[in-house]
Amino acid sequence: MFEARCKADVLRTVIDAISTLVDEVKLKVGKDGLSLRAVDAARVAMLDLTLSKGAFVTYKAEDRELGLDVDKLKEVLKLAQSEDEITFTLDEEGNRLVIRIGNLVRRMSLVDTSAMADAQMPKLEFPATIAIPASELERGVRASEAVADHIELRATPQQFELAAAGDTDVVNLALDKKQLTNLRCSENEVRSLFSLDYFGHMVKAAKGASDVTISLRTNYPVKLDFDIAGGNGHVTFLLAPRIESE
Amino acid sequence: MFEARCKADVLRTVIDAISTLVDEVKLKVGKDGLSLRAVDAARVAMLDLTLSKGAFVTYKAEDRELGLDVDKLKEVLKLAQSEDEITFTLDEEGNRLVIRIGNLVRRMSLVDTSAMADAQMPKLEFPATIAIPASELERGVRASEAVADHIELRATPQQFELAAAGDTDVVNLALDKKQLTNLRCSENEVRSLFSLDYFGHMVKAAKGASDVTISLRTNYPVKLDFDIAGGNGHVTFLLAPRIESE
Amino acid sequence: MFEARCKADVLRTVIDAISTLVDEVKLKVGKDGLSLRAVDAARVAMLDLTLSKGAFVTYKAEDRELGLDVDKLKEVLKLAQSEDEITFTLDEEGNRLVIRIGNLVRRMSLVDTSAMADAQMPKLEFPATIAIPASELERGVRASEAVADHIELRATPQQFELAAAGDTDVVNLALDKKQLTNLRCSENEVRSLFSLDYFGHMVKAAKGASDVTISLRTNYPVKLDFDIAGGNGHVTFLLAPRIESE
Repeated sequence: MFEARCKADVLRTVIDAISTLVDEVKLKVGKDGLSLRAVDAARVAMLDLTLSKGAFVTYKAEDRELGLDVDKLKEVLKLAQSEDEITFTLDEEGNRLVIRIGNLVRRMSLVDTSAMADAQMPKLEFPATIAIPASELERGVRASEAVADHIELRATPQQFELAAAGDTDVVNLALDKKQLTNLRCSENEVRSLFSLDYFGHMVKAAKGASDVTISLRTNYPVKLDFDIAGGNGHVTFLLAPRIESE
Repeated sequence: MFEARCKADVLRTVIDAISTLVDEVKLKVGKDGLSLRAVDAARVAMLDLTLSKGAFVTYKAEDRELGLDVDKLKEVLKLAQSEDEITFTLDEEGNRLVIRIGNLVRRMSLVDTSAMADAQMPKLEFPATIAIPASELERGVRASEAVADHIELRATPQQFELAAAGDTDVVNLALDKKQLTNLRCSENEVRSLFSLDYFGHMVKAAKGASDVTISLRTNYPVKLDFDIAGGNGHVTFLLAPRIESE
Repeated sequence: MFEARCKADVLRTVIDAISTLVDEVKLKVGKDGLSLRAVDAARVAMLDLTLSKGAFVTYKAEDRELGLDVDKLKEVLKLAQSEDEITFTLDEEGNRLVIRIGNLVRRMSLVDTSAMADAQMPKLEFPATIAIPASELERGVRASEAVADHIELRATPQQFELAAAGDTDVVNLALDKKQLTNLRCSENEVRSLFSLDYFGHMVKAAKGASDVTISLRTNYPVKLDFDIAGGNGHVTFLLAPRIESE
């Protein structure tokens, strides 16, 4: 049993996050909300997303797993304005998700989840965490994309810096402690290099968030955290570092 | 003699309807307004459009036939804002339509109409007519396009339904009598299947209209009617049914 | 030494003018402002652009020449809103232009200017000058592009006219003295033919200007003049005539 109704905007945020990494996803619904975890095909990046009951206009669910095709959800989204309400109901017999927008009904076949492994979030420890306005980070990423295909993130107890170095040009975005929402760094310096393609998509999925929290450690995965659905949901991205060839 | 002035918006509506079916059209102008009829190359669909004198800011015409190139009219439209006035004059000697927008003049050569047959609107009888908000119908069509290339229209005395069935997913839009502007159905049920490509273009041409009237009969052409130019014009589309292979 | 700050809009206007003709440009900076001159690869068109100190929020410079890559400047522009301020500083040692938008820094390598010749503006005399609203001229150009690849400009003491003749259709824009901001023509008639590709790009670069001044002579280059940056800068384009084959 699953019946939930939300604003189109909430669905949009969720889809933006998922489509960064995968085309199909296993959604776990339960009585207090839903969650999903996805690993990209190259196993370089991971997404963990939770959305509590409070993100919905109405919500009722028993524990279930639903296999969803992300492109089909995008099609549905195009039919709704951001304030429109979308209702999702599970048709257990037909193995379909029934989606209603106004008088319109789309019955969407579910995807087989038997081959989708349950990803485990690794336990990671980070000496540095940085909370930065999403819009600042997004501009830094866009500027970097013009000059390079990888990006370096650095933190010290005083400063956070994003840098991209191409053959001739260099981009960097440096914010000191006062310009950041939060900065904590228990080492003198931490730094890691990441694929800008992955990192850029993750940052763009955070577009609607106010702040993004970056957790960092030298030559170690980066963790991005941000709230969605007005604080009623949360997204965590993990991205493996790119090892610098010398 | 032909001299008429209208808002760019009126021209836009007319072009949207024509370009659904043909690239060239024979326009009949007369003292009370103009009309045109077009059949697509595959002879599956027909358009009948009338625009009375009242749709124009100024209008003076004697009986004439003008062969128009629809793509050229689209080019002209791009030069005008929706509230701009466009003036059309016939240059009989040069066999050209002279189009003025502000100080700008385009002299457009007319297309030879001698090969364009006069299409007759067939006499058709329909047991069901449904008046539905254009925006509802348009959303139903867009949702259907994501899952199938044909669409079924059904009516009963109580309900109108549009349905599209793909390999895995199904879309339908059902409105009962109270949700429709009008519903009349003298049989228990009528239903026909149509090409979504044609039907979709027709419905999108009705974008600016408030209601679209659908006339329906089992395994029979569908007729779509809507007003244009604030009630000073009218569009009728006919579309042959697609025969369901069993 | 070079340090200047301006609104993104000012940079946009400058880039729109330059990118009409060249990908790389030699900018001359001096204590009162900057200037540049560019000739397109086919040597058919020339640009002269000046921007005084007054166009900048802050400006300090010694005489220098800077080689700029226009595409890179376009990338930078995409990172700024029109009211954002952009700061340019010269890094003499690194041979780079350092560009700051908020906390973001892009270090852009300069282009070698040694192979860029100093173009001389030819001395030209024109019997006719016409000042015309930029928006009128731009609409005339867009309408012409639909029918032809060249354009004729004509002036008499009473009228200015732009005309484009294709195989079947003709566009013209005629404004008499009262409709123009200014018209001076000391000959009975002057007329020249120009490539619409070049002329169109030049006219579109004048989009933000109120008036464009056209200087004309029979079978002779045309000169376009318009102010930029609220009168704190000026653009001059020269375009060679296209010789009509008879």
